[in-house]
Amino acid sequence: MSERIHATYWLETGDDPARAAEVIAGEQSSGTFVALPNETPELKARSGARVERLNVLGQVDAPSLPGGMRAHRYTRCELELSWPIENMGPSVPNLMSTIAGNLFELRQVSGLRITGLRLPPSFLAAYPGPAFGIEGTRRLSDVHRGPLIGTIIKPSVGLSPEQTAEQVEELVAGGIDFIKDDELQADGPHCPFDERVRAVMRVVNEAAERTGKKAMVAFNLTGSLDEMKRRHDLVLREGGTCVMAVLNSIGIVGLQELRRHASLPIHGHRAGWGYLSRCPELGWDYAPWQMIWRLLGADHLHVNGLRNKFSESDDSVIEAARAVLQPISNDHPMRAMPVFSSGQTGLQAADTYRAIGTADLIHTAGGGIFAHPGGVSAGVEALREAWVAALDAKPIADHAERVPSLRTALEFWQ
Amino acid sequence: MSERIHATYWLETGDDPARAAEVIAGEQSSGTFVALPNETPELKARSGARVERLNVLGQVDAPSLPGGMRAHRYTRCELELSWPIENMGPSVPNLMSTIAGNLFELRQVSGLRITGLRLPPSFLAAYPGPAFGIEGTRRLSDVHRGPLIGTIIKPSVGLSPEQTAEQVEELVAGGIDFIKDDELQADGPHCPFDERVRAVMRVVNEAAERTGKKAMVAFNLTGSLDEMKRRHDLVLREGGTCVMAVLNSIGIVGLQELRRHASLPIHGHRAGWGYLSRCPELGWDYAPWQMIWRLLGADHLHVNGLRNKFSESDDSVIEAARAVLQPISNDHPMRAMPVFSSGQTGLQAADTYRAIGTADLIHTAGGGIFAHPGGVSAGVEALREAWVAALDAKPIADHAERVPSLRTALEFWQ
Repeated sequence: MSERIHATYWLETGDDPARAAEVIAGEQSSGTFVALPNETPELKARSGARVERLNVLGQVDAPSLPGGMRAHRYTRCELELSWPIENMGPSVPNLMSTIAGNLFELRQVSGLRITGLRLPPSFLAAYPGPAFGIEGTRRLSDVHRGPLIGTIIKPSVGLSPEQTAEQVEELVAGGIDFIKDDELQADGPHCPFDERVRAVMRVVNEAAERTGKKAMVAFNLTGSLDEMKRRHDLVLREGGTCVMAVLNSIGIVGLQELRRHASLPIHGHRAGWGYLSRCPELGWDYAPWQMIWRLLGADHLHVNGLRNKFSESDDSVIEAARAVLQPISNDHPMRAMPVFSSGQTGLQAADTYRAIGTADLIHTAGGGIFAHPGGVSAGVEALREAWVAALDAKPIADHAERVPSLRTALEFWQ
Repeated sequence: MSERIHATYWLETGDDPARAAEVIAGEQSSGTFVALPNETPELKARSGARVERLNVLGQVDAPSLPGGMRAHRYTRCELELSWPIENMGPSVPNLMSTIAGNLFELRQVSGLRITGLRLPPSFLAAYPGPAFGIEGTRRLSDVHRGPLIGTIIKPSVGLSPEQTAEQVEELVAGGIDFIKDDELQADGPHCPFDERVRAVMRVVNEAAERTGKKAMVAFNLTGSLDEMKRRHDLVLREGGTCVMAVLNSIGIVGLQELRRHASLPIHGHRAGWGYLSRCPELGWDYAPWQMIWRLLGADHLHVNGLRNKFSESDDSVIEAARAVLQPISNDHPMRAMPVFSSGQTGLQAADTYRAIGTADLIHTAGGGIFAHPGGVSAGVEALREAWVAALDAKPIADHAERVPSLRTALEFWQ
């Protein structure tokens, strides 16, 4: 028996669902629109995609997406397809063309969203996964319990290297664990990457010498392959412990090559995720999408945050975080660290912890730290203490009675 | 005056449109959700995105996408934003994070689609564009008037190298100009890339020696960077004249590196385009998307075809083809060759020519060629003769009176 790749979809179709499923399976394997003499039963048995499961969920009167076939009713279903691994070999790029290629454009489809992915052992064995993951990130950042307390350099873009370093100096003095560039901050002439890294690492290294603890800074090295390699090497040389790449901006080959070259954790930013996911009847669920990037080697993956300022629901955020933490398989867990951000404060700590059952995460706050009346140091402490309360299952207000910085924070976090 | 990057969007918002536009501009440049002391007026003037144009198109009662702010009315508008090039430098990956990053997830957005992109000269000068384009493709395929008549190897996946070569032999004997692998056919163990290339090129080279004309075969080398380079070199060594890559599957860095390495035209397949575009209120128009890939070096770009078997409308197909043919600028035209496919026959020739005003294209047909009762040779001739009629502005039925293969074809094409 050949190993098979399984993908699940949410499908809406104006056609008979069984026929639509067969058309999709055919289009994505040996079939075509017209019967061909070469598509023999043997070839089809060997190379055809198989409809493994088709559960009707309900019907609607109008199609979710335009351009499909016209019908009186459109049926929504769960669909599971499988392919023999021989069709494409253990190759992520060719997997993409198979599980997420032309099928979204079919006329039989008035809604299609990929919801899950299951890969056989030989496929997983061909990919490295995260080099650092949760354990490596904890080791490098010297944070052994609770989340990494993090923040993002703001304004997103426009600060000079020196201004960036000043902000980092304040954060590091305040005991921050993790700092990241904004995804818009790259290598513009107002803030060249090299100068920024040198200025920031000077401050970070000085603090590390004094305190023994080095804050992890994710420098956004997104760029061409040569640029990314050169920038990675500079960060490493300057004593940095993390690099960041915008995954949709560099693509699959970009991350694969960066992972091959890198000896630092890769912080995977998901900018652009909205155009892949914001229409519920099209595109990608986070579960299959994040799996692709973990295979290739992302150590950290953004999942938004509870009660965020964006349009994503809390349920979706938690589902995304659970997906990132879920082992891909027992032999190849490839777990990455979820990164919570957007409108975050200590008030989300307990709910986040309850929902995912672990503090193996990075919790980044901007205003939640900077706006603290006691300064950045008090802001960092307050967020960390909110997590102490969460981990001890203690009401945050009770804990705040003993921690003045948290008491103050509770007022402005509201 | 700094050079600026301009992007246009179709926006739907539950907010006041002017405020929504400012929020989007802020999120994608120096702004954040909360006012920051560091975001000085000077910094904002230097680095902020600017709302260049905001035209209200109309209002609707319900939001197109969920998760946004609630309102009684949702306003639809055309929005043009601009950014100083200093924010990101002339870098396609960082351009992506800026023009197509977090903005799709904003609560102010209940619909957002990027519709256009305009890049300043210094940005364009930093990218190579297609190495071959229309002229190079015509030279290598020895087709100097009319479109390249092409086809796709079918079944998509499942043929052995020998079976593939047999199909190619028939096509080449029939005078075909262009053949491509299916995007699902890569390097599986049933049809390893190397064996396929050797078997196919043996047949192609033999025919070329006999006739002086070498058919262009686009071998799908989609894979890791090393695989793509190695496969490209094999194709080159075997006398091949084209390679194909699935753009969404390799990503921006993938194409950039392939272009740097390649000395053959790159046939850019757009599998996955559906998940980027099928929801009219989200994602990408083809015009900005194809521009990205032309900058990076795609020589051929798929545009579907008139009266295709997929869900795309004819208007959208023609708009896509025109975009691919439109010079990016006078100094950097970077024109690529549009590839028409899906349900194509000679019946679409005249309409296609009328709509785009040129035959600088590849017209691929499967059933439209293979199903010809006179065989593949007659099928190829019929499609070519349909284009002769189109170019001469002659009714196809009149021309068919003098061309028996076309006369026969007109019956089964209906």
